[in-house]
Amino acid sequence: MGYTKTDELAINTIRTLAIDATFKANSGHPGAPMGCAPLAHVLFNKFMTFNPKNPSWLNRDRFVLSNGHGCMLQYALLHLFGYGVSMDDLKAFRQLDSITPGHPEAHDTPGIEVTTGPLGQGFANAVGLAIAQAHTAGVFNKPGFELVNNHTYVLFGDGCAMEGIASEAASTAGHLQLGNLIAIYDDNHISIDGDTKCAFTEDVSKRFEAYGWNVIWVKDGDSDLEGIEKALSEAKAVKDKPTMIRLTTTIGFGSKLQGTGGVHGNPLKEDDVKQVKEKWGFDPEKTFQVAQEVYDMYHKHAAEGAAAEEEWNKLFEKYSSEHKDLAADLKRRQTKALPEGWQTKLPVYKPSDKAVASRKLSESVLEAIYEAVPELLSGSADLTGSNNTRWKSAVDFQPPSLGIGEWSGRYLRYGVREHAMAGIMNGISAYGTLIPAGGTFLNFVSYAAGSVRLSSLSHQRVIYIATHDSIGLGEDGPTHQPIETLAHFRALPNMMVWRPADGNETSAAYYVALTSTGTPSILALTRQNLPQLENSTLENGIKGGYVALEDKSAQITLVATGSEVSLCLEAVKYLKDNKGVAARVVSMPCMEVFDAQPKEYKLSVIPDGIPALSVEVMSTMGWEKYTHEQFGLNRFGASGPYKDVYAKFEFTPEGISKRAVATIDFYKEVKPLRSPLNRAFQQLI
Amino acid sequence: MGYTKTDELAINTIRTLAIDATFKANSGHPGAPMGCAPLAHVLFNKFMTFNPKNPSWLNRDRFVLSNGHGCMLQYALLHLFGYGVSMDDLKAFRQLDSITPGHPEAHDTPGIEVTTGPLGQGFANAVGLAIAQAHTAGVFNKPGFELVNNHTYVLFGDGCAMEGIASEAASTAGHLQLGNLIAIYDDNHISIDGDTKCAFTEDVSKRFEAYGWNVIWVKDGDSDLEGIEKALSEAKAVKDKPTMIRLTTTIGFGSKLQGTGGVHGNPLKEDDVKQVKEKWGFDPEKTFQVAQEVYDMYHKHAAEGAAAEEEWNKLFEKYSSEHKDLAADLKRRQTKALPEGWQTKLPVYKPSDKAVASRKLSESVLEAIYEAVPELLSGSADLTGSNNTRWKSAVDFQPPSLGIGEWSGRYLRYGVREHAMAGIMNGISAYGTLIPAGGTFLNFVSYAAGSVRLSSLSHQRVIYIATHDSIGLGEDGPTHQPIETLAHFRALPNMMVWRPADGNETSAAYYVALTSTGTPSILALTRQNLPQLENSTLENGIKGGYVALEDKSAQITLVATGSEVSLCLEAVKYLKDNKGVAARVVSMPCMEVFDAQPKEYKLSVIPDGIPALSVEVMSTMGWEKYTHEQFGLNRFGASGPYKDVYAKFEFTPEGISKRAVATIDFYKEVKPLRSPLNRAFQQLI
Repeated sequence: MGYTKTDELAINTIRTLAIDATFKANSGHPGAPMGCAPLAHVLFNKFMTFNPKNPSWLNRDRFVLSNGHGCMLQYALLHLFGYGVSMDDLKAFRQLDSITPGHPEAHDTPGIEVTTGPLGQGFANAVGLAIAQAHTAGVFNKPGFELVNNHTYVLFGDGCAMEGIASEAASTAGHLQLGNLIAIYDDNHISIDGDTKCAFTEDVSKRFEAYGWNVIWVKDGDSDLEGIEKALSEAKAVKDKPTMIRLTTTIGFGSKLQGTGGVHGNPLKEDDVKQVKEKWGFDPEKTFQVAQEVYDMYHKHAAEGAAAEEEWNKLFEKYSSEHKDLAADLKRRQTKALPEGWQTKLPVYKPSDKAVASRKLSESVLEAIYEAVPELLSGSADLTGSNNTRWKSAVDFQPPSLGIGEWSGRYLRYGVREHAMAGIMNGISAYGTLIPAGGTFLNFVSYAAGSVRLSSLSHQRVIYIATHDSIGLGEDGPTHQPIETLAHFRALPNMMVWRPADGNETSAAYYVALTSTGTPSILALTRQNLPQLENSTLENGIKGGYVALEDKSAQITLVATGSEVSLCLEAVKYLKDNKGVAARVVSMPCMEVFDAQPKEYKLSVIPDGIPALSVEVMSTMGWEKYTHEQFGLNRFGASGPYKDVYAKFEFTPEGISKRAVATIDFYKEVKPLRSPLNRAFQQLI
Repeated sequence: MGYTKTDELAINTIRTLAIDATFKANSGHPGAPMGCAPLAHVLFNKFMTFNPKNPSWLNRDRFVLSNGHGCMLQYALLHLFGYGVSMDDLKAFRQLDSITPGHPEAHDTPGIEVTTGPLGQGFANAVGLAIAQAHTAGVFNKPGFELVNNHTYVLFGDGCAMEGIASEAASTAGHLQLGNLIAIYDDNHISIDGDTKCAFTEDVSKRFEAYGWNVIWVKDGDSDLEGIEKALSEAKAVKDKPTMIRLTTTIGFGSKLQGTGGVHGNPLKEDDVKQVKEKWGFDPEKTFQVAQEVYDMYHKHAAEGAAAEEEWNKLFEKYSSEHKDLAADLKRRQTKALPEGWQTKLPVYKPSDKAVASRKLSESVLEAIYEAVPELLSGSADLTGSNNTRWKSAVDFQPPSLGIGEWSGRYLRYGVREHAMAGIMNGISAYGTLIPAGGTFLNFVSYAAGSVRLSSLSHQRVIYIATHDSIGLGEDGPTHQPIETLAHFRALPNMMVWRPADGNETSAAYYVALTSTGTPSILALTRQNLPQLENSTLENGIKGGYVALEDKSAQITLVATGSEVSLCLEAVKYLKDNKGVAARVVSMPCMEVFDAQPKEYKLSVIPDGIPALSVEVMSTMGWEKYTHEQFGLNRFGASGPYKDVYAKFEFTPEGISKRAVATIDFYKEVKPLRSPLNRAFQQLI
């Protein structure tokens, strides 16, 4: 309370920085920053605790800009509070290789928590950040040590409010009673198509109430700073529900086009820029103006944040002496290093061990390592029994009041909400103390594609446990049988797609997934049983590809993944017995990891001189990079018992042999016959 | 009202058929059919008008089973009412090549309107069916001729209710005031993880009220047939809102496991099957029992439906004489044939015409053909001005009461709801009188991946107008720049992915998209301007790939799409001038269409003897099928002016030339150097 001229000046400084940066870039979105500056000012300067000099301090309050196109709001704040974002960085807004790209990218800019812009994502990330806070507090807070008690604030617009992922995440947050989550809805009634009345006339407040949220309306978000402050105070006081503050604002406040779509995604015109600055007492001829009193005010708050961290560090020191193991664990988690020796817990199999579905093998890994890797938080989008994602003794992450779990629980019931699950996992990972793993059918990872892409782009260590990975799921039929899915995610940069063939490869997949701190993974796992293979070892598996069956006289290399590796081994026998053809087999559980091996090794796996044929029961796309010919399924599958389905599409020893013989014949006359791994030039990285 | 023993017997017959079919298949979901049989009986036998002998009668009421896993409910009904689903078909449930697959597939089974199973999709499809009805009525109904007045009914479960796509679609339907839409929520509190209280505790009724729906609660959906009938009557009486009937049921009603997750996705145990049958007076030793009185009752209703169609046909005959053109148009639309001569309206360009962004070229196509193709219904997910999807004189499809459009309007404002847009478009297409086209950024077609897949699987003529197709969008940066997207959708069976290089190719894309009645299309379009090319003609474009620049002495073929074709033409000059190398250029706007050309033609485009190099500013995945080497972007893009971004990644004449020279060198010694189009064996179709 008691806002002064300096507050007003600060707010208008945020606005004019957004105006100047978008004008200079001739690109960007000034409208949201201009409309939301008052909220941002009150929130950052009066409510949030953070230390710009250490943006990774664990107990900082988190802020997520779900309407990421309004990122000049955030960049301006980061600059003004003294984060590592300079005035030159603001001037380089939307320019090549700047740290102020067109949408906020967590990996590039100090103070950006998560990568946003694709609408709705930030909202789900915020739910994940709040979940991670609640869980971390549940595990680490002790009497006298409220180590972790930060809030998560998320600003979202009409676009986010319309996106299904945000609906899913909001329903989840309401169910989970996340009192540490405060969402501010920039209710400006404008989206790109203009007035939202053309497509969006629902009662958003009532909808959030239906989800179980506390809802507050601030009717004048443009100038009622006291009202904003009161709403935020009330929101913080509600501990058993997330709060949604409906903040009615005028988009592009101050512009001649304020309140219209004209100010949403286009810089202001030059005369408009000038009139705005004049109106607010800025020099219309100058750009990027910040009065020293504004810096002073914000730096004062930043210093308070630094002091708060200092206090926290002392508290943590005391905690370290009274709760030594917990303190060490919390410290370690933040380094992203796993506990020493955890990998010795990974299950190891002999070829004589029985055949098991890889979804069950995945369950065995979780069962074996959950104690050794306490930061692992598993879950499923309502397919727990099918995805095998829950270790037996797991406790659900639930608000204790429901009587079915605890905040410290490590199993998350995401509901049938694949997209939100993925977005929430990105947020959980971004918090810094947890590694989220979440299950669904491989085919429905596609529902989450928007978030999966951001797992990759923002370098989150997130694990997608994707069972029922092919036509091998059988009766559920084409609506559930992935064809294009692996190609899709293999084409996604910074994503590891694993399709293990047996137990040791499944352990290898988990080993690499858990130790790759900046890369997400998709584990494609079978519903049907798979035999344990001869040459499969952890050491081989973690190379991404290896020789599963060597034969120096081989006329062809068969390259397969998952359930097709054992099928290829059968085909080798069939080829020898029926065609007198010698063949070798390569198992390639993860292309991306194989790609990273030394060339010499790779050429020992898929050598020059003989042709290679890939065998995988889905789209052949992507296999041309490794093999001369491809046997796959470039059509939709079929509903029926899985062996019938495999036979229908000729995925049998005979079917493979036929194509192997054709391949050998076809390449006989080509000289030299190079491995496809030889390339004319390197790809850019 | 006045329900008898026969009604009860019919309901239990539906239930036991579901029990027997899942038991015989040892697979499937008996729970939902057993719980929803009373609703289905009342709805089909008392409310819905349909003629099983002509499942494509235009004015039939539509039924969508959004919880598609419960499809034995629907298959049983189709059989009992006399659709082309025999008792043997029921016995072949979930068996290979049956018409009763594990989830309902519209293309395969008479009486199935849309393909469902992936949760939430059917709900969105139903909204699309209702939109199509409202629009068709708006265009064709005339005083005295209520030609089109059918209702759309959709049954959905807790799983669908949790999915974001259903939330998006429900919000849309509420906004559009679709009084012809009645959704029945099977409120059985059970999903695969068990009691929904573990993840889903929101107030669904209140949420639908927030969307603007009329909501009715039937508390005893297991036995209160009068209550169900009353609710359906009330729902039909409400004309200015969609209605959601919350129907509280007991999943697996009658089973020893009723009301638990145990009966959701597993057949009943043998003793349970017997006790259920005994309880209901069926012979416990017999399977697939249908009493004649049940057939009689349902066939009677089917006969009434046939009579209704007869009446309708007479009405249509009268309409044909009074509204000759409209009648002819409506008739034609249902054949899926386009109006004669429409294609003469397609824009044609000369090389001297100015450079234009392909999103603008797409707009010119829409502007040119909208009158000639009245069934085209355009729209956008809140990116109208960016996607250029709206012709100037377009009227919005809106409830007239809002004052911003008409039922007969042909432009749909989908809001920021990409997934629902796609699911709704599938429903619009399935109605039979419209061709939907909807816009978003290419990168956000991924948000809709679940529905896009079903466009393909269910053979819908749906057009995705996907602008901002690459790093060429510039400043918005990596969060918005597609890398994996084209690979993803090219790997999807029965999908045409177009990336036109200029005006004539854009016209060609529309020509093929509109005339391919059973295949959806994605048109990837640029933000930046593209010059008009020499050899680009409609005739060349519709082949999917053609020689854009021939040179009989060429040492290399450059193969490109979209914005990279003109870049390759520049590279040819650079190669000649700086390296003394002759090159030819192929434009490949659509791989799938090119694949369908005769082999001889294809080999004339990408010939034997010289290497081919693809150039496309995104994932190289998939290009190995056409070219020996690939120049692309297997990493995320960058935020900046697009020319800077292109230069950063070496997509310049020099960058291409460097790689062309490397490619020529690398393949010099290989003999014979075959075109990659030569394959050792054919892929299965």
